[in-house]
Amino acid sequence: MLKKKFFKKVVPVAVISTVLFGGLISSVANERVSAEQVKPNDHADIKNVIFLIGDGMGVSYTSAYRYFKDDPTTPDVELTEFDKYLVGQQMTYPNDETDSITDSASAATAMSSGIKTYNNAIAVDKDKSRVKTVLEAAKEAGKSTGLVATSEITHATPAAYGAHNESRKNMDEIADDYYQERINGKHTIDVLLGGGKKNFVREDANLVESFKKNGYSHVSTKAELLKDSNEQILGLFADEGLPKMIDRSADTPSLEEMTVAAIDRLKKNDKGFFLMVEGSQIDWAGHSNDIVGAMSEMEDFEKAFKAAIDFAKEDKHTLVVATADHSTGGFSIGADGVYNWSVDEIKAAKRTPAFVAQQIATGADVESTLKLYIDQDFLPLTDQEIKVVSAAGDKGNAIEEAIKTIFDKRSNTGWTTGGHTGEDVPVYAYGPAKERFAGLLDNIDHARIIFELVGSKE
Amino acid sequence: MLKKKFFKKVVPVAVISTVLFGGLISSVANERVSAEQVKPNDHADIKNVIFLIGDGMGVSYTSAYRYFKDDPTTPDVELTEFDKYLVGQQMTYPNDETDSITDSASAATAMSSGIKTYNNAIAVDKDKSRVKTVLEAAKEAGKSTGLVATSEITHATPAAYGAHNESRKNMDEIADDYYQERINGKHTIDVLLGGGKKNFVREDANLVESFKKNGYSHVSTKAELLKDSNEQILGLFADEGLPKMIDRSADTPSLEEMTVAAIDRLKKNDKGFFLMVEGSQIDWAGHSNDIVGAMSEMEDFEKAFKAAIDFAKEDKHTLVVATADHSTGGFSIGADGVYNWSVDEIKAAKRTPAFVAQQIATGADVESTLKLYIDQDFLPLTDQEIKVVSAAGDKGNAIEEAIKTIFDKRSNTGWTTGGHTGEDVPVYAYGPAKERFAGLLDNIDHARIIFELVGSKE
Repeated sequence: MLKKKFFKKVVPVAVISTVLFGGLISSVANERVSAEQVKPNDHADIKNVIFLIGDGMGVSYTSAYRYFKDDPTTPDVELTEFDKYLVGQQMTYPNDETDSITDSASAATAMSSGIKTYNNAIAVDKDKSRVKTVLEAAKEAGKSTGLVATSEITHATPAAYGAHNESRKNMDEIADDYYQERINGKHTIDVLLGGGKKNFVREDANLVESFKKNGYSHVSTKAELLKDSNEQILGLFADEGLPKMIDRSADTPSLEEMTVAAIDRLKKNDKGFFLMVEGSQIDWAGHSNDIVGAMSEMEDFEKAFKAAIDFAKEDKHTLVVATADHSTGGFSIGADGVYNWSVDEIKAAKRTPAFVAQQIATGADVESTLKLYIDQDFLPLTDQEIKVVSAAGDKGNAIEEAIKTIFDKRSNTGWTTGGHTGEDVPVYAYGPAKERFAGLLDNIDHARIIFELVGSKE
Repeated sequence: MLKKKFFKKVVPVAVISTVLFGGLISSVANERVSAEQVKPNDHADIKNVIFLIGDGMGVSYTSAYRYFKDDPTTPDVELTEFDKYLVGQQMTYPNDETDSITDSASAATAMSSGIKTYNNAIAVDKDKSRVKTVLEAAKEAGKSTGLVATSEITHATPAAYGAHNESRKNMDEIADDYYQERINGKHTIDVLLGGGKKNFVREDANLVESFKKNGYSHVSTKAELLKDSNEQILGLFADEGLPKMIDRSADTPSLEEMTVAAIDRLKKNDKGFFLMVEGSQIDWAGHSNDIVGAMSEMEDFEKAFKAAIDFAKEDKHTLVVATADHSTGGFSIGADGVYNWSVDEIKAAKRTPAFVAQQIATGADVESTLKLYIDQDFLPLTDQEIKVVSAAGDKGNAIEEAIKTIFDKRSNTGWTTGGHTGEDVPVYAYGPAKERFAGLLDNIDHARIIFELVGSKE
């Protein structure tokens, strides 16, 4: 009996000392009729690369966000910042024995290192050998480097650019790797901004102190970040992931603010820089089937993308690429046979369902709390909706599910899974060499093109 | 209280006598950073346009089909014919008072005529005034024209290219329109191939006889189609829609065969041709949440697309564009938290669930019928699965639902709706001026670009 999943074994082409470039442009790029001929000289003016990953940001998310953000007082649907730079799509499948749908670790390794690997792998191949990343190649070329995320900075996506581990779950080891790895005697990553303080300050180690001893600033609030001007910096703004944008206090920087802080430091290197920025929690909202959180994190990511584009427009030697690693949740614009995805009810939310549920679970009155955080002009709650939330008692999860159901039903939002889905995701590009990312890419193509552009060819 | 959906009113820019071209390139095209400058002279060598619409063919479908068709004996995932020609995506929203998600009529009118209109509209604007279509513009320019579909040839998508009606439901009137409309004294549509005989041969009229009197061939089987060589032809191969590819008998032509038959006739015109080809039933499978039917109709459509590409490669003066009008069903690759979309269980199907259900509902034995049409090497049925189908008795719908559930659960396929969804859909292009379709388009852009390319500027 033939039983195979759709994925294929991919020959591991790269271990850390033997990455191949130049002639090794992906088969997809070769097959694409519209692919430009490779002319490295055309791209001699690329100094900086900013690679942005909207984790879980499938086509449903990028499309929905446009309609969510549309200004209803103007005659046209306004384009998002992403829309203006769409160049194509990419395939996301992993090389895994049991899974045909990728996780964030495998996908990020593909984009950082140019190899397909198993789910959970952090910049290691199927044999668990370390594979070189584009961030490491940039550092080898004398560039500055940075990682920015709204998850733990040791979470799967940033980890696959700056560390190597057989499992994404080993976030303490990944933090160790960030500290220990040196290239030409220097720390590999100059700027680290995100969450995950608990992976750096532990019973067995205090990596914050270690980084500080080696000249890094350490900041843990937005005010401290904005005040600091040191070129090497470790910013950890939460024990785990940052709050979602819509739930944040003034102490927490936005992804845009972290991105600008990173660029301001990295741009001082005359040899240029590589920066990876992740909108980490689009995916988390998708896993939770939370449309309010999803739109919140899309906005946070869009503003960071615009900051990168604005810098690139002025700089003229910066390539900006934005894409997703996969989509999440089986999110659909429309559900249950209704041909109307209604955004006002989603705009009514002033906090995520999880935030509101937390208030209620810890004793706040159901009706007044719901009405405090859900604008009654846009989503006037029915007695029945309030009753269902009340019936969940003090169980946070059940309260949260009840509130999410209100938003889903009122907006006609659909979901099929608490996990990932396998459809192709959009690719956006701006700056010199942007045409290299046009058409249909495989996720490994990103690394292969960027290796070539940053000039790492050994 | 502010209550608006995300769509916007679009000023009706075109009625049939006053379509504007040239300067009127869409706002999206203008905003796109990567948009090529309009240089009509570059495209003087475009003689023919083949526009293919995969109805309901969202990104989940085009991605899933790649994995479904992948050859498990080779090391790489093979690209589909579509993959090689991806140039971007398009937005699909309509201009409708109550719906923010498009139907096929409104979307096809946008693509055929360059205006946003209400759902159900067949090449009429919000005021129900007729708007010129690219097929009509091509005929005005002396080109030959054709419509090919696997639905009724009077169904919403082809209708919006060759007829005008306030409602897609008036398929008899649409057939009348196909017959009655003349441009420069000649029939507007030279080749009509699809289903829907009952809309042509009716109690009140026999349009087959009328067309024949005016020199058209009439064919109703694949053999008749392949034997015929008349330049004008009406082929009606079913009373309503054609059977799905996987269910077809040898009497019914494939979409590829109809497409080739159309091209062979239309190419005889020295002034060129416009041909619209619809893979109509990808959408119908999506409405029915039938993954077997969806993959069947993707294959039918892919082969037709390849036939168009093959012709264009040889001809060198043919632009081929393929896209979708919207996505359908909220179909997701993966469901219920499982990271494995498993294709073998879908490949096990030898007929659609609807076909198998029909056999059982009309008296065939449940177990032997299921095992006849579902390859037991790829999807060995459990006693429980057979029991659930048996429990549906002779109710065709319930039997079909039970069989579809088997395929969904075994393959981890998700659905959120029996209707359409609003995410952007992929755009593929080949041939001269293909770069005009790159990046993010609005659905109206297709018509506006094609109007310009076929040289209709009055």
